[in-house]
Amino acid sequence: MINYPAGQGPHKKRRNPYSSATNYSSRGMSFEDKINQSNLYYLKHQIAVIHKKPTPIQVVKVDYPKRSAAKITEAYYRNASTTDYNGIYKGLYIDFETKETKNKTSFPLSNLHDHQLKHMHDCYQHGGVVFLLISFRSNQTVYLLPFKLLQYYLDHFQKQSIPYEFIEQNAFVCSQGIFPPIDYIQALDKFLDQQ
Amino acid sequence: MINYPAGQGPHKKRRNPYSSATNYSSRGMSFEDKINQSNLYYLKHQIAVIHKKPTPIQVVKVDYPKRSAAKITEAYYRNASTTDYNGIYKGLYIDFETKETKNKTSFPLSNLHDHQLKHMHDCYQHGGVVFLLISFRSNQTVYLLPFKLLQYYLDHFQKQSIPYEFIEQNAFVCSQGIFPPIDYIQALDKFLDQQ
Repeated sequence: MINYPAGQGPHKKRRNPYSSATNYSSRGMSFEDKINQSNLYYLKHQIAVIHKKPTPIQVVKVDYPKRSAAKITEAYYRNASTTDYNGIYKGLYIDFETKETKNKTSFPLSNLHDHQLKHMHDCYQHGGVVFLLISFRSNQTVYLLPFKLLQYYLDHFQKQSIPYEFIEQNAFVCSQGIFPPIDYIQALDKFLDQQ
Repeated sequence: MINYPAGQGPHKKRRNPYSSATNYSSRGMSFEDKINQSNLYYLKHQIAVIHKKPTPIQVVKVDYPKRSAAKITEAYYRNASTTDYNGIYKGLYIDFETKETKNKTSFPLSNLHDHQLKHMHDCYQHGGVVFLLISFRSNQTVYLLPFKLLQYYLDHFQKQSIPYEFIEQNAFVCSQGIFPPIDYIQALDKFLDQQ
């Protein structure tokens, strides 16, 4: 590894303390990658401790070769029984799901499974801060939609999708940058200020 | 499925709303199974929402057979970067790790990885309720050891293990039964009452 003197060398690379060269810009990163990088930023700066849960996998067969690690040779993806992300921020229990849509005019509720909605409802009932992060690919905008609003919409309209206007008017825009790529904690602060 | 009239049929089976016949008693269940069953009990009775995180697995190769589910054909277990369990209870962020030991006189600290300790410390700093559940197989006793006490021990003694006496005197015993198999929330209440 080359240790460049201060003020010299490939700055863009070195300014990112988290990752390899291919990750130094948020361009080309998936929505999930951006959230994970943002969580790493929050963790390193002691802002919040939020992690993505591992993908649940049903292991069927495992080989145990001599002198090497156990090798899984047959396994299948399972549906998650909860949301993908949870953790703690300012002493609050945080729980959220991330969803991305190519749709321009609405967010399709089929994107959310019943067990995810139930889990979000359970956490909300117990006093958790629960929300959706919805990424609209068409205009590259990410919204934080508090569970209360999602629940309100489901209770009153029971439609197959939430219109973009409802989200635009009621949800909180997450500003985007490099560190963190998606500053959803800033949007969360705006929401919490209103409580 | 047979629907027995009320008051008849195999009661033991029917009284357990959670699981198949093989699970109706906690005998023979692993420590992890007992914690998972307890979490299910807490969830169904709206006491707490606490889940075990899936085991992290690094997927290397996946087959996509026609007309059937994606089949993972090469994958490896990874080390967890956090604790195994987290969730919410009485509006509090809960985070814990479960450890079992055959040792009679002490709890070996080698059972805890550095990244787990760091994660527990991070969560504690942010206001979370963090603890260890330690199962001593020798006397089938389960203790809830609050992170503050674990930290105290690490700071002051830096030993390879925590003596059983220290745990017996300072930690909280979890009562055991059938529903839930290990009532760690009751032990947690005792701890929280002292705060």
